[in-house]
Amino acid sequence: MSLSAYLEARRTEIDAALAAWLPAPPETPAVVADAMRYSVTAGGKRLRPVLCLASAEAVGGDRASAMPAACAIEFIHTYSLIHDDLPAMDNDTMRRGRPTLHVVAGEGMAILAGDGLLTEAFALLSRHAGTGRAADAARTLRVIQVIAVAAGSAGMVGGQALDLACVTSDPSGRPALALDADGLRVMHGRKTGALIRAAAVAGAIMGGATDATIAAIDAAAAELGLAFQIVDDLLDVEGASHDLGKTAGKDAAAGKPTYPALYGVTQSRAMADACLARAETSLVRAGLTDSRLLDIGRWIVAREN
Amino acid sequence: MSLSAYLEARRTEIDAALAAWLPAPPETPAVVADAMRYSVTAGGKRLRPVLCLASAEAVGGDRASAMPAACAIEFIHTYSLIHDDLPAMDNDTMRRGRPTLHVVAGEGMAILAGDGLLTEAFALLSRHAGTGRAADAARTLRVIQVIAVAAGSAGMVGGQALDLACVTSDPSGRPALALDADGLRVMHGRKTGALIRAAAVAGAIMGGATDATIAAIDAAAAELGLAFQIVDDLLDVEGASHDLGKTAGKDAAAGKPTYPALYGVTQSRAMADACLARAETSLVRAGLTDSRLLDIGRWIVAREN
Repeated sequence: MSLSAYLEARRTEIDAALAAWLPAPPETPAVVADAMRYSVTAGGKRLRPVLCLASAEAVGGDRASAMPAACAIEFIHTYSLIHDDLPAMDNDTMRRGRPTLHVVAGEGMAILAGDGLLTEAFALLSRHAGTGRAADAARTLRVIQVIAVAAGSAGMVGGQALDLACVTSDPSGRPALALDADGLRVMHGRKTGALIRAAAVAGAIMGGATDATIAAIDAAAAELGLAFQIVDDLLDVEGASHDLGKTAGKDAAAGKPTYPALYGVTQSRAMADACLARAETSLVRAGLTDSRLLDIGRWIVAREN
Repeated sequence: MSLSAYLEARRTEIDAALAAWLPAPPETPAVVADAMRYSVTAGGKRLRPVLCLASAEAVGGDRASAMPAACAIEFIHTYSLIHDDLPAMDNDTMRRGRPTLHVVAGEGMAILAGDGLLTEAFALLSRHAGTGRAADAARTLRVIQVIAVAAGSAGMVGGQALDLACVTSDPSGRPALALDADGLRVMHGRKTGALIRAAAVAGAIMGGATDATIAAIDAAAAELGLAFQIVDDLLDVEGASHDLGKTAGKDAAAGKPTYPALYGVTQSRAMADACLARAETSLVRAGLTDSRLLDIGRWIVAREN
């Protein structure tokens, strides 16, 4: 199967599971269920859930056992986009080619829909704790821990807070926080990298991997997460709004530090390629040569949107 | 021990655990850790964690085993207050006698601090899964499920969405949603009642209660949650801003449906007393006569702030 056929097949499975597991009336009031569904079904690359399923398969596990974790992570990713797009944060009005949720449902409902998706991620994880065997319960608890730490204030929320502090002026008009190259890497490691790593690690845990294999997948995913962010910055500089489905050049205009701004386009490209090479080394050392994980890494670096 | 001494002792334990378990640098960036701490340490009645610990004790369990659940629920309660106070929601500038978080830290950081506290609740629950025995893992997963469902779009978030829809005008200037007496009860059951019930149920589960006892505690807590809301509405009408630490009469001014508005003050008082009586019946039938749960119920109905 070609990579594009593989990705298409996985996305179809993931989209079906997301649609089935989204809260709906009568348990959930329609006014907030509709808002949650609007954002989750807006499409997107489904990179994190695909990586989660591929990781479970790579370690010889059952794809179905990783599906709740894959969907929980996509719920969390979607909530983070909804909250990031709010006027008090990035103030984006377009996302994936459609008006952002706060534009169509109001700011209050957008905040609540994000809160609902984040909470539903943990409801979903704890509801599908496998067959009831003790090993399944232990794996599920470990996955909840990995995802909560990655998504929380030590991970994604913390990275977003650093990002926000970079574009918030103190009384003298300077940014409240100025990031150098190291600070930029740490910020993105939290904001984008942590959840990508958690996706791969959660798949490996649910797939029954050993701790050594989980660590190798974690290291590879950290490289892929950084490559993803560098390519994102490059696309923001190079891309047209049409292809990205969002406003191009917005980060640079907002004075946010980016990889091309710090290193230039050519060196940024080389850095992304180096990340991919290090991810490959990590996977090969763990004997994970016959998996889709590296293909997904190549796609992350070569993608055009 | 008098009830007030009991409450004081439990609050001291809870405040110490909350302070110890709040995220802190270097794992969490100071800018968001400080914001989370500001709101969690602002005080408050700690009703939900006290109820959680009292419930564990009532069924003969160990109070310490319920402390992570008690603190996780207080993190969730605090996040819900931060988000409810935002300009896009209730637009409150004072809470517990202090400026609300978005006033001191900005809207964006307040949204992120709320997101961080909600996520940390699940990190805390999954980190303290007991001694590693299979029974502990199963109980913890069950508690995560109970709390996530109660806090999510089928519970607290759903109730807040209904509340928001009541005060949001459609293009003709009418509320997008109009609640009758039944609708008001359902809205509050989600918005306030669900998390109060989850607190009592989580304590009972961690304390090792049977399913029948858990059901009796759930039924009693549902009555106490309704009584709490009725008394809250009465205090909003009767109380001074000074005692409440927030703006009195605000709900009525915003055109929100309240119990005194629907039933009058005298009948609302009688309804709260009836809730307490039904809670007592449920606890007595389950043989839970020698517990603090009913004392806490009496305090809920008699409280003056």
